[in-house]
This record gives sequence, structure tokens and C-alpha cells, in this order.
Amino acid sequence: VKTLTIDEQVAYLSKGCADVVRPAELRAKLDRFAKTGTPLTVKVGFDPTAPDLHLGHTVLIRKMKHFQDLGHRVIFLIGDFTGLIGDPTGRSKTRPPLTREQVEANAETYKAQVFKILDPERTLVDFNSRWLSALGAEGMIRLAQRYNVAQMLERREFKQRFQSGEPIAVHEFLYPLVQAYDSVFLRADVELGGTDQLFNLNVGRDLMPSYGLEPQVVMTTPLLEGLRGVEKMSKSLNNYVGVTEAPDEMFGKLMSISDELMWRYYLLLTDLSEPEIRALQQGVASGQMHPKLVKSQLAQRVVADFHSAEEADRAAARFDARARGESTGDEPQLDWAVPAEPRPIRQLLIELRLVGSGREADQKLDQGAVSIDGRKVAGKLELQQTYLSPGEHRLEIGRKRYRLVVK
Amino acid sequence: VKTLTIDEQVAYLSKGCADVVRPAELRAKLDRFAKTGTPLTVKVGFDPTAPDLHLGHTVLIRKMKHFQDLGHRVIFLIGDFTGLIGDPTGRSKTRPPLTREQVEANAETYKAQVFKILDPERTLVDFNSRWLSALGAEGMIRLAQRYNVAQMLERREFKQRFQSGEPIAVHEFLYPLVQAYDSVFLRADVELGGTDQLFNLNVGRDLMPSYGLEPQVVMTTPLLEGLRGVEKMSKSLNNYVGVTEAPDEMFGKLMSISDELMWRYYLLLTDLSEPEIRALQQGVASGQMHPKLVKSQLAQRVVADFHSAEEADRAAARFDARARGESTGDEPQLDWAVPAEPRPIRQLLIELRLVGSGREADQKLDQGAVSIDGRKVAGKLELQQTYLSPGEHRLEIGRKRYRLVVK
Repeated sequence: VKTLTIDEQVAYLSKGCADVVRPAELRAKLDRFAKTGTPLTVKVGFDPTAPDLHLGHTVLIRKMKHFQDLGHRVIFLIGDFTGLIGDPTGRSKTRPPLTREQVEANAETYKAQVFKILDPERTLVDFNSRWLSALGAEGMIRLAQRYNVAQMLERREFKQRFQSGEPIAVHEFLYPLVQAYDSVFLRADVELGGTDQLFNLNVGRDLMPSYGLEPQVVMTTPLLEGLRGVEKMSKSLNNYVGVTEAPDEMFGKLMSISDELMWRYYLLLTDLSEPEIRALQQGVASGQMHPKLVKSQLAQRVVADFHSAEEADRAAARFDARARGESTGDEPQLDWAVPAEPRPIRQLLIELRLVGSGREADQKLDQGAVSIDGRKVAGKLELQQTYLSPGEHRLEIGRKRYRLVVK
Repeated sequence: VKTLTIDEQVAYLSKGCADVVRPAELRAKLDRFAKTGTPLTVKVGFDPTAPDLHLGHTVLIRKMKHFQDLGHRVIFLIGDFTGLIGDPTGRSKTRPPLTREQVEANAETYKAQVFKILDPERTLVDFNSRWLSALGAEGMIRLAQRYNVAQMLERREFKQRFQSGEPIAVHEFLYPLVQAYDSVFLRADVELGGTDQLFNLNVGRDLMPSYGLEPQVVMTTPLLEGLRGVEKMSKSLNNYVGVTEAPDEMFGKLMSISDELMWRYYLLLTDLSEPEIRALQQGVASGQMHPKLVKSQLAQRVVADFHSAEEADRAAARFDARARGESTGDEPQLDWAVPAEPRPIRQLLIELRLVGSGREADQKLDQGAVSIDGRKVAGKLELQQTYLSPGEHRLEIGRKRYRLVVK
């Protein structure tokens, strides 16, 4: 447990947050902890569907860790109650009901991933069906009496849908209340969530006093930008780093980000305090530190979190070797399952997501940065009908090397 | 069981209704009954609070009877589920939660009153907590998935409150769904209710097909006008006839209504068909029947419903005797609990609700229609400081006589 002043604690816990409602209440709660030694209860809700976390998700999980660093108790709450319900109309294929077994299997998958960051000793994994099922139909109605329709429609997403005539099913008004009741049941001191959860978290704040409880402090973490620095990190945009990716892949991806994005990642993906990050920024600005070195330290920190310090060192060493043009024999291998037939290399790069866009493919080709089996693919003329025979090929894009297996 | 054509059945069941959604479906259901002999299930929901019924309530109950007349099965559904909930915020004093014992005591009070009209053999008294409690919190959310917010806000009352910024609590959206689920559970063929229930009843119609059921036919009965023919009949307006009132009181009150209102009461408070009522109207219009006689027959019918044919005859005879100025010795006795002190007689008449308004009091006094202990209270001059000593007094207003007991 670090020993920090209350001011430093507030700063450490608020670092990188999008919203803190309200800092004065957080300070009062931390003050009470200092006096009584009773740790705060920090509640964070997670979707019960099978998790496959990337660094974007870890921003929130890291914020949970910051509370643990200061001696508080974190509840990793799996929202299985609603997950077990599904969509009775059968209209939504995205929300099939989960079985109890699936929920428990997903919980294990969660634990395997989040305990790379969280301290298992200070983490309580819980399931909200435990108290929500006991609520009964009567309890649900009693709960719904405590909030009104106009308040619900203040939520931006509901308001937009309502105004544009898109349907909002009545049960969508129940979910924020159910989530708020979780906070009541758990007597949460703090609830954390993504910025998109701000409304729901504040419903919990609103409801708690009507049950005679102190309102929870609400804190949200922002969406992490993806590797290209523009859109949010997501699987579908192929701009992510998965927490189970191999050290070399993680390291390589992190070295590809812009200098600007690097500071954002320092803020949201490490435990460095804002003063510590500012010191690094000043070092780079004054020319005392090379930005590549600072980026390499960031990549090593992240790899160390999900693997180990040793593996992070080795990944850094291999990255440097490749940068010097040495083959390391461990380039990522791509199994390319398309038939062996003539096709434009431009299309191939896009299909394999080795470039982010057609424009990027053209740039790389124009720059002569692409080669196949050691032969440079120069300019657009040669783009048509590049033939790849079945078997292994070596593909290079700039400094990145891939083995392609054509089947 | 009357034998009527399907057309006649539809006419009999629709008589006096404010809405029938939809007559073609009602016809089809009656047709099926004629072929299969399986009676229709007619569901009617009642508030679980202590009933004290007046003729206004009997319009709906009589409509239930009409279905029984044709051989169908009526479910007198007591909405105890929501009654057991009450208002957790404690803001509403009008909705305290009921205990199980209160609900059952109220059910007995209902039965004592409604079985004066309904056939107990064809009436099933049921309680919706039986299936709604079993629904659970999950079931409530699943139910709420089947309807959307915009549909709810189509309800005129919700729309008005929403637009004028009056709060609508979220649970108010759950009650129509709960009521609709009752229809699903009971597989209702028809649901009856007051006009104010049209929206809720139609939610039941909307939901049933999503459970694979034929939609219920929805029928509403109008509000009955009170004795003065303008506002709706209600206790607080003192323009009502209670179903437990004594024969003479019922009879006298009914004889006080206008000829116009008499036809409305014939339509809504008797089993006469529309052709039968039209025949009476033609008799009066042609001068063959005296309207007072037709009104007396109406009053006798109503008294017979809640007492007996013999008592109705006796009430009619006593009414005639009083009309001829003969004392019958059974004038209503009023226990007046105010102190024996000088006070204006005008105020006394209003307090005792012997007149409907201050204006009516002035009229009666101006007409010299009021006398106390045989002495006429003439004009406004004598209005001030009329002293009534403790003990019995005789009060007459026109032909109506009262014994006043001043304490």
C-alpha cells in the first residue's frame, strides 16, 4: 500500500478519468478511510458475455487496480441477471440468453485475463443474479417507482432514439434501475465504468439516498484510441492489441503508434502518475530523451503487465534486431487460405489487414516498401495479377516481415 | 340461457358500450361458441381496495351479467398484486399497501355486493398475485421487452403529463403490461372495463398474439351520469345511489332524475334491449304512457335488483303516499351532531347535503318549500340565527320529510 496524502490519492485515482462525480465526496470518503481504516467498496459491472479483452478494456481494469493500490476493495460484478434473460421476441441475434454454465465459464475467462492486472486478494467476483432474482416481480415494480420517465429520457441515447422515432423497449428503462439496485445492495462507495455508462452510474447515485445510503461517487474512464490514433480501439477496426497476444506482436504494435498517442497510452495504460509522465515529456521536448526510447519503455511496461519483465526485455531485443534488418526467424506467420491464383497484391494487403486502408496500400506500394520473396513490388503497374504459388512466401512491408502460407 | 341470433347477441352485448374493439372478432367468437359450446372467458379487473359500490359501478357489472345471460364464463379478477405493493416512496397517502387479510376481506365485501347482479355459478373470483408473483424479476423484464416507450406515451393521460412536465414514474409503464399479462395467463376472449381503461385493455390485445394467442375483444362501458345528469356519478359529488342504500332512499333518488336521464339509466342500469327501450320512448312521446310511470318502473327495477320485487313494490307505494302528503312514519332520520346553537338554516341544508348547492337552497327557501316542525321558513329574512334545540325536529323540503336529531 502506497502512502500518499489525500490530495495525492485523489490525483492518482482521478488520473485519466473522463468524469468524476463528485471529487469532494471522493475526498471525504478517502478521509474517512484514513481515519477508520475501513476500505472503500468499489463496484464495477461487466457484461456476462465471453470476454476477449484488448488494451482498451484494461483502462477501466487498471483504474480498479489503482483503488487496490491504495488498499480498497474492488467488486468485479458480472451482470449475469440480465444475461440470463435474453430477448424473448427473438428479434435480436446479438443477445441470446446465456446458460448458468456459460456464465460461469465466462467468469473464469475473465479472471484469467483481469488477474494479470488486478490483485486477486482484493477482488471479489460476484454475480448480480444473487440478489436480483430474489427481488421478485413486486420488487421490480417497487424499484421502478423510484425513477421517472422524463429522467430516463434525459439519457442522450434514449433522447435521440425517442426523437428520431426509433423504438425504445420498456425494459430498457429497467436495466439502469437494476444496475442502480446493485449499488444499493452492495453499498458501493464508488462505481467505475466507461464514459458510455455515465447515465446508468448516476441513476445509482440518485437512488441510493432513497434507501438511506450515501450516494456513490461515479468515475468513468475514457475510450482508448486504437493504434492509428483516430477511432476507438476495437476488434472490428483491427486497431487493437489483445491482452493474450504474444509479446512480439504486442511490442511491435505498440512501437507503431505516433508520439502523440504514446503520451495518451502512458496516461491510460500505465500506473505512472501525471507528474512522472510530465517529466518524460519534458525530457523528450528538451532532447534529453529519444522518443523511440520512451516508446520502447512504454511497450516494455505493457508487455511486462501481461507476460513478464523478462519476456518484455526479450521482445524489445528482437524488435531492435529486426529493425537492424536481422532475421530473427520468428516473423508472424499468416495462413492465407485463398486459392493460389493471380490477384492484385493491393487487394491482398487489404484482405490480410496488413494495411488499414486502400490509401495506405497505395502509399506503401508507391514508396516501394512492399516486397515478396525479396523482390520489390514497385509502383502500381505491377499490381495486377500478382501470382502467388501454393507454399510459403516471404512478405515485407517496410520493416515488418511476414511468412505467408498459400494453400 | 336466452336463445338469440348471433346478431341479437352482438347487439345485446354491445348495448350501452362506449367502445367495442372489434365487433367482427366478437361475432366470430360468438359463432364459435354456437358451434362448439365452449363458453367465452370474459375477464374484468377490479381494484383491491375496499369497495362501496354505487349504481355507476354497476354498469360494468351488468355488462358482465349480459355475458352470463348468454352462457359465458366471467372472471371477476381482483388486482391484488399491485395492491400489495403500495408506494415505497411514501409520498402517496392514497396508496398504502394492503395486507393479504385486507385483500380477502375486501373480496368478501365485493361478492356481497356484486352477486346481487352476477350469477355466482358463472363467476370465478380470482387474484392476479397468483401468477404475477411467480413471474419473478426476470419475468417482469421479459414482459417489459414486449412493448415500447413510444407506444406507452400514446396513452392520452401519459402524453398530457409528459408534455406538461408532470412526472410519470417508470412503474406506471409496468401496470398496463401486468394487466395485459393477466389476459395472457387467463386466455381471455373478452376484456371489459371502464372507458378510462381502454388503453390498458388494448395493451392486452396487442400482447396476446406475441404469446401465440388470439387477441381479446375489448369492450368498455361509459361513465354513468349522476342524479343531476351533468357530472359523473360519484360519492364526493353527492349525486349517487349506493347499492346498499335502503329501498325508499333508492326509489326516491331515482324518481328525482330528469326524463332525459331516465332513458340513459334504462340503457345502462337495466337488461332491457334497445328495441324495448325505444318502444317505451315511443309510448311516452305519443302520450300513451306517462313519463312518471315509466320512471317509477325504472326505479322499481333498480330497487328489485338490489333488494327484492316485494320491497320495490312497497317503496313505490310509500313514495306515492308521501307524494299525496300522507305521513308514512318512516322518513329518513338524520343524526345532526353539531352543537345546539343558533345558525342559518341555509347553511344547515348545505351541510346535511339535503340540497346540491347554495343556489338550490336559496331557491327552496324563496319558494317557501322548507319548513321546520311544521312552521314554514319563509324567505331569506328568517335565515339568520335559526335555533334548533337539542332533541328531535321535523324538517320538510318540498315533499321530502326528515327527522333531525340534534345532539
